Amino acid sequence: MSKPPTSPALRERYDRRQQEVVATAAALFARRGFQATSMDELSEATGLRSGGLYHYIGSKQRLLFEIFSQLMDPLLERAAEIEAAGGDPEQQLRELVRAWVAHIETHLDHMAVFAQERHTIEREPEWEQVRAQRDAFEAILARRLAAVGLTDRLTLFALLGMVNHTATWLKPGGRLSAEQIADGYVDMLLD
Amino acid sequence: MSKPPTSPALRERYDRRQQEVVATAAALFARRGFQATSMDELSEATGLRSGGLYHYIGSKQRLLFEIFSQLMDPLLERAAEIEAAGGDPEQQLRELVRAWVAHIETHLDHMAVFAQERHTIEREPEWEQVRAQRDAFEAILARRLAAVGLTDRLTLFALLGMVNHTATWLKPGGRLSAEQIADGYVDMLLD
Repeated sequence: MSKPPTSPALRERYDRRQQEVVATAAALFARRGFQATSMDELSEATGLRSGGLYHYIGSKQRLLFEIFSQLMDPLLERAAEIEAAGGDPEQQLRELVRAWVAHIETHLDHMAVFAQERHTIEREPEWEQVRAQRDAFEAILARRLAAVGLTDRLTLFALLGMVNHTATWLKPGGRLSAEQIADGYVDMLLD
Repeated sequence: MSKPPTSPALRERYDRRQQEVVATAAALFARRGFQATSMDELSEATGLRSGGLYHYIGSKQRLLFEIFSQLMDPLLERAAEIEAAGGDPEQQLRELVRAWVAHIETHLDHMAVFAQERHTIEREPEWEQVRAQRDAFEAILARRLAAVGLTDRLTLFALLGMVNHTATWLKPGGRLSAEQIADGYVDMLLD
């Protein structure tokens, strides 16, 4: 993996292109499986030769790590913003779960790859960072649940389960919007 | 894969040995991944030479199918029994979710393999049977939820999400029993 460029304009272009490459790889892995996908297929899908692939992502293993970062980083950032903004606790919880389901809706491939490769992640030392992001997100979630009186660990696990599972059945543009789904889940816990 | 023996005693021994082989393979796949596990490693873990492996399971792909059958068949059978027994609708729902969480607790490896290889399952024509079992189980679940007034599809999906997700965090012998977890989930939906 090459060093990203230092000029802001080049850096932005590099980041955008890297994001596209990672998203394309996520789509391919979600459909065919991580192990079953070759570097040649990645080249073909991204339109990059092996040198270009190396430039943007390094190894296939590194690509997996980038997929999880694309999944967790923006979600954690948004969750921290919602928490920092304060306000009515129920409203904060609703906003958090809405942002989360909406993020899943736009990252269905990333979610599928995460489910497939979870056993890899939980073993490698380089995944410490992904785990730390996930733990930080779960901590925000636990605090927002506690703020509306839901302090039971099982409620946190139930919410993680229902929201993450959404990735297996949600069809973008389907009958229910991400917001309706999120509100439905929060209603189940609050009522 | 050879034909199973026809004498009842031999058949029982064959079935038991096959179950062990499938469970051992599930444990290996859960830890190492399906693709990353070789037939040699399967031989070593099961103590069977390649001829013996072929006798009990046929191909690696067939083994995957057997893992999902071990996961779904007994669960569907138990769910149908609970439904056929009738009785108080809330009690029936509780018994169903208890049996389901207890089954997951004893099949954590099978669940992990299912999560990893879901993308394979949903594509191959031979998986029709696994899908049919899953659909039949979900239909029972939907009827039991409807019997207590929970007719919303989202409630069914939420329950599927929370219960299936349990496989990612449940430690057998941990603080909460399968029954306590199941009752906690049902309480969240009913209250």
